[in-house]
Amino acid sequence: MRTIDWVDGAIEIIDQTMLPGELRILRLHTVGELVAAVQSLAVRGAPALGVAGAFGVALAARVHADDPQALALAVRRVETARPTAVNLARGAQRAASQLNRGPQAVLEEACRVRDEEIAASAAMATRGADLLTQLCGARARLLTHCNTGGLAAVTVGTALGVVHELHQRGRLAGVIASETRPLLQGARLTSWELTQWGIEHRVAVDSAGPFLMARGEVDAVILGADRICANGDVINKIGTYAHALGARRAGIPFVVVAPESTIDLDTPHGGAVPIEDRGAAEITPWADAVNPAFDVTPHDLVTAIVTDRRVITGSPAATA
Amino acid sequence: MRTIDWVDGAIEIIDQTMLPGELRILRLHTVGELVAAVQSLAVRGAPALGVAGAFGVALAARVHADDPQALALAVRRVETARPTAVNLARGAQRAASQLNRGPQAVLEEACRVRDEEIAASAAMATRGADLLTQLCGARARLLTHCNTGGLAAVTVGTALGVVHELHQRGRLAGVIASETRPLLQGARLTSWELTQWGIEHRVAVDSAGPFLMARGEVDAVILGADRICANGDVINKIGTYAHALGARRAGIPFVVVAPESTIDLDTPHGGAVPIEDRGAAEITPWADAVNPAFDVTPHDLVTAIVTDRRVITGSPAATA
Repeated sequence: MRTIDWVDGAIEIIDQTMLPGELRILRLHTVGELVAAVQSLAVRGAPALGVAGAFGVALAARVHADDPQALALAVRRVETARPTAVNLARGAQRAASQLNRGPQAVLEEACRVRDEEIAASAAMATRGADLLTQLCGARARLLTHCNTGGLAAVTVGTALGVVHELHQRGRLAGVIASETRPLLQGARLTSWELTQWGIEHRVAVDSAGPFLMARGEVDAVILGADRICANGDVINKIGTYAHALGARRAGIPFVVVAPESTIDLDTPHGGAVPIEDRGAAEITPWADAVNPAFDVTPHDLVTAIVTDRRVITGSPAATA
Repeated sequence: MRTIDWVDGAIEIIDQTMLPGELRILRLHTVGELVAAVQSLAVRGAPALGVAGAFGVALAARVHADDPQALALAVRRVETARPTAVNLARGAQRAASQLNRGPQAVLEEACRVRDEEIAASAAMATRGADLLTQLCGARARLLTHCNTGGLAAVTVGTALGVVHELHQRGRLAGVIASETRPLLQGARLTSWELTQWGIEHRVAVDSAGPFLMARGEVDAVILGADRICANGDVINKIGTYAHALGARRAGIPFVVVAPESTIDLDTPHGGAVPIEDRGAAEITPWADAVNPAFDVTPHDLVTAIVTDRRVITGSPAATA
């Protein structure tokens, strides 16, 4: 089952706002529907957003084939639906690069973006599992944050794909999934995927992670990224930085798993990334709130970044 | 208004499970009712638990005046209703020390415990506000975790009492209240108290705290304690340790405010404290969970501990 795909002239996605209660497929026929799905997090996760961006432009190319101005506007709407993950704009731009060759060429490019993410997931799973066993020994107890499974990609996923591969190899001794407030991607989505895969796990509140590490219950932290800067700073779901601080103090590895498509050499460091604030309503009905959806983990706290092509232990720019 | 008091032969508490939706007073007539209220967190917070322990024994002394065995059992039930905060057992033991003088003497001792906590709150507010202004300058932007207001004590509170005092002095430039999963003492209780006091504030998810510090939005972290060990390790609501790591990395003060009654010189260090696990049901209906209600912040991460008698910057044992 694919999280996002092109089926019979429309985009089909698993509606992630309904999980784990209901596995519902949404068909998106217009750019407006796609943008709404992206903004409500019905589809989310950096690799999946890259595919959503590409398919969104494929939709635009069909609908606005005869109106270049409307087409350009629609492409821009897709690119900017959310600001932080670089994959969305990058996927849209890849598909848009074929606009002068017509809607079919745009769709073919979008399908290539999808196929590349599927292949990247498989490559990361293998390489990441090798690295984790090297770092943690025969059987690792891992903590992961947010959702980085098939639901964040097309199939398999990034960091959770590594967890799955370690499980398949018999090299997994435990998983803690942090719940990931405010939208509970960990408690709702990661837990659901792990259950589908038959992997035992425990959910924890986000703020418990560093303490569970200090108590010796975690051998490594493994999670994804929404953007990786030229200096190696990692932009990812809010809470990632706190987990990195916990891992450093506990002396355990902090491993980021993300496809090359998430590396943005045009962004020098984390301070240059726009951090989406999603407003108070996601957090509390009773007060004002500050709600950054992502945070910046400085590169010195990152043990390694696993991509579909390499293991990066310094700056991605230096070793590209 | 007092969070907990003795009124007409019974214990009256504000039912904190109902806030902020409803301000409901519960009357507790039996030890069973008191223990249930403590375990459901209808009454919570280390200083308030100390008073609850003392009044619980006063109830027991009345009900079981003629049955020493039942009385001893009831006292033990009160002492052990929750394991982590030292105040509960200590308050119970203080009241129990008067058992041989009869129920009225027990009640008088319990009322002294209550009155001392009220006096301690006032002393901490003054001393803490002085220290925060010294550490942060004329106008401080503070982040606090969990609830340490009047609801955690009898009136005023510990860390939130300092926030209130700074506001009164015109020396407060902003408050971020972390929501405090799983039971949302920050979003429900701290936000409610701040609103009652007319103090503007923003709520954040717990895992955002360290990032907001890194982004330069916080001048100091100020929070309470459920037990302070002889070496200065601080046991407090889960998430405290992650905030301490964030403060250290950001180079800002991390200040703990707690009465002397929370210092436990009989506990050498944080590793010796039983950490209550409150089970999966508080966190998620969909999976197993690990749910430590408290964590340990090592003493080297604590800038200062403000009590009703002193400011501690090293080991409480050394400076007692």
